[in-house]
Amino acid sequence: MAEQVLDRIKQVVGPNGWLEEPRDIEPYEVETRGLYHGKTALVVRPGSTEEVATVVRLCAEAGLPIVPQGGNTGLCGGGVPDEDGRNIVLALGRMNKVRSIDPANFTITVEAGVILADIQRIAAEHDRLFPLSLGAEGSCQIGGNLSTNAGGVQVLRYGNTRELTLGLEVVLPDGRIWNGLRTLRKDNTGYDLKQLFVGAEGTLGIITAATLRLYPKPRATATAFVALPDTDAVMSLFAQARAATGDQLTAFELIPRIGLEMAMKHVNGVVDPLEQPYETYALIEVSTASPHGDVGATLEGLLAEAFEAGTVVDGTIAASGAQRDAFWLIREGMVEGQRFEGGSIKHDIAVPVASVAEFLKTATAAVTERLPGIRPVAFGHCGDGNIHFNLSQPAGADKDTFLARWEEFNDIVHGIVAGLNGSISAEHGIGRLKCQELTHYKAPIELELMARVKQALDPKHIMNPGKVVAEAAFNALKGE
Amino acid sequence: MAEQVLDRIKQVVGPNGWLEEPRDIEPYEVETRGLYHGKTALVVRPGSTEEVATVVRLCAEAGLPIVPQGGNTGLCGGGVPDEDGRNIVLALGRMNKVRSIDPANFTITVEAGVILADIQRIAAEHDRLFPLSLGAEGSCQIGGNLSTNAGGVQVLRYGNTRELTLGLEVVLPDGRIWNGLRTLRKDNTGYDLKQLFVGAEGTLGIITAATLRLYPKPRATATAFVALPDTDAVMSLFAQARAATGDQLTAFELIPRIGLEMAMKHVNGVVDPLEQPYETYALIEVSTASPHGDVGATLEGLLAEAFEAGTVVDGTIAASGAQRDAFWLIREGMVEGQRFEGGSIKHDIAVPVASVAEFLKTATAAVTERLPGIRPVAFGHCGDGNIHFNLSQPAGADKDTFLARWEEFNDIVHGIVAGLNGSISAEHGIGRLKCQELTHYKAPIELELMARVKQALDPKHIMNPGKVVAEAAFNALKGE
Repeated sequence: MAEQVLDRIKQVVGPNGWLEEPRDIEPYEVETRGLYHGKTALVVRPGSTEEVATVVRLCAEAGLPIVPQGGNTGLCGGGVPDEDGRNIVLALGRMNKVRSIDPANFTITVEAGVILADIQRIAAEHDRLFPLSLGAEGSCQIGGNLSTNAGGVQVLRYGNTRELTLGLEVVLPDGRIWNGLRTLRKDNTGYDLKQLFVGAEGTLGIITAATLRLYPKPRATATAFVALPDTDAVMSLFAQARAATGDQLTAFELIPRIGLEMAMKHVNGVVDPLEQPYETYALIEVSTASPHGDVGATLEGLLAEAFEAGTVVDGTIAASGAQRDAFWLIREGMVEGQRFEGGSIKHDIAVPVASVAEFLKTATAAVTERLPGIRPVAFGHCGDGNIHFNLSQPAGADKDTFLARWEEFNDIVHGIVAGLNGSISAEHGIGRLKCQELTHYKAPIELELMARVKQALDPKHIMNPGKVVAEAAFNALKGE
Repeated sequence: MAEQVLDRIKQVVGPNGWLEEPRDIEPYEVETRGLYHGKTALVVRPGSTEEVATVVRLCAEAGLPIVPQGGNTGLCGGGVPDEDGRNIVLALGRMNKVRSIDPANFTITVEAGVILADIQRIAAEHDRLFPLSLGAEGSCQIGGNLSTNAGGVQVLRYGNTRELTLGLEVVLPDGRIWNGLRTLRKDNTGYDLKQLFVGAEGTLGIITAATLRLYPKPRATATAFVALPDTDAVMSLFAQARAATGDQLTAFELIPRIGLEMAMKHVNGVVDPLEQPYETYALIEVSTASPHGDVGATLEGLLAEAFEAGTVVDGTIAASGAQRDAFWLIREGMVEGQRFEGGSIKHDIAVPVASVAEFLKTATAAVTERLPGIRPVAFGHCGDGNIHFNLSQPAGADKDTFLARWEEFNDIVHGIVAGLNGSISAEHGIGRLKCQELTHYKAPIELELMARVKQALDPKHIMNPGKVVAEAAFNALKGE
């Protein structure tokens, strides 16, 4: 029976639309960091929304579960199949057309398989900015960005992917197509259905296209690397920065001394921009599309105020594009540098912006108490309250022994996050990796509401089963 | 039975928590423009979330429908009971506490019954801006703003109410309390449940409190009143304005000559700021929280560019606060002035920003063809594509005869809006007024998805029945 369905699916998508040789399908089965190695009977690569719809309808009729997949760059295993081999992988990569761009309307409509960097480039060619920007942008696909509500380095100014989304086209779990490709800024005609699918990681339907917001292209950028007296100063400096720049901040990134040192030690070209060492730094960037604004003067004004107020003790403004790149190389080199320092236990957490300093102090003390010598490298999108709290092993310790304590340290750190009303997944999503853990941190009523929404839209549970909503969440609905 | 339930509800909320005398409850039964005069057996005014929860649980058990009501300033009848007298009105006005304000976190947490203007004032006292601003702000309540996803005059810069919302506390249709009062900028832990309740007009639960975003308080504002060569220039000028001001535009309002004339004729103090008459004007405002930016120079730079490009043919920048007020008086006087020109058939539509000029031309031609002498006064939040396309009767015509053609002209205008992929309710919502009409303009699959969500969260349909989701939408679910 399943064989027959697979044959029909192959006919629908044609010879270029499917893969089943082990060597061809393996890249679709493996999670990018090697966390999971799943199994699929068939990788389907439809070329159009209609093909997606037909494939989903056939799978729904036969009860075959579907795992939608974009660029397979996700960090929580949301896009890979499980090990039982029944999941069909539906990869969107062939749906890579830009359907339209309308610079006067500040919108672009793209299919799910378009690479993020291509959207940025095409927007720029039309004197527009598509602001979503993140490490994987050269290979991740916008459908995946939408499904995980991706964050990245410009959220502070432009919001997450959710805020960049005006409309969606979605294939529903029964194979029908919902065309919600609106280009409106305002539309209060009932429930805002697109919000259901953004960030749902393919568990409620398959996003096949989206209409996205564009912005005026920045004309000038100014970047500073500053030293703070201590982490307590972070939130005051952030508030000053928002006011002084008229909310034209595009980045406010935290960098700890240990991160700078790891970057300098292991990554070519990284240098300390300041003459003396300090414990805590921030990378601050301001940009404007206005030819009339002077972002350099604005940033100088901010630093003068901050020195006066004692929220900054040292700092320098990039005098050239090369110097700006050098500042950002520290930010990127910090991630790279950690790899050479042994095992690293990672966290992608968010707390209220005002609680960043408290989180850093409490979490650092707690993990150090549990394991003296552990080296927290806490960095990231501090202006969003989003800290990548990565724990490098003690120097000289055994890597595997350290990594075996991953869950133990997750528990410590996520417990502190929960106490501060924070989030255990700020921008990476839940996928399979945090699906069970989420049941400990989310209130039962919230898990139940999620299950109700899932049940309402995908009653057969064929869309990406085992991701986001844990089976246990459906218990509350039994017997209804 | 219903009597007994009402008695128990009265006990729960205590003597200050309910009204049943006809003269006391009448204000809660009447829609603000007199469109509907409903009937209720009891107005409940709970003083706490727990009281709301108990009242809802009692109503759910007894099958009594509930109409949540804020300041009762809505324009679509979403907050008033129907005529059968079974609906309980649950008014949130006594829940008017600011639970906390955290300037460093740029957040405020308020109960549903807090008046919008009070939130603005309290934010300002803490050197912060709460940007939601609209005509009814002196009496509307934030719970109503949230439930209708209110728009207003600063959406261009800060977004609708949805974008200003970080977290919600909601009493669900079975009386349980969901505490989702997060203060996070980033949280990708499953479905974003708050999105369900914002804009749902109380049909999925009762919002009892919210955590809202604050912004740095603006330090400087610059305002221009400009004449355009024609409506075709609107979108080019808007794109120029976004770029030239670095997206620090707070208003971009369309004003037609006829609106200015009606304002001058009927409202004291309104004068034409320009020496010659023109057909089309825009009111443009730029503001910044930065002490380092010069918004006056920015606006001058924009106008110089626009003159050069021919998108502006005349204009003036306010030289004082008084002059700025005079410009805004035109915008407000235009609404006031229409009242003295006989009947007015109103529309609150949105089209893609790039289609504003096309909409104006097509719709003006269509209504004029149907009724020569009709006077379209098309104005509004042009930067959001949101036009209040109000049709004043031909001079000297009979008012009642004209107003009797309300639906006829709605059909013409909304048909054009639909052809441009627009919205028949940009910022006022659906409520009861547009509930049936919506079934003509929304795709069946969308109506069905709305019904599915409603069914999942409020299976007994006790929350604000007959609003937003028409009964017909549930047909698709029958037999499941």
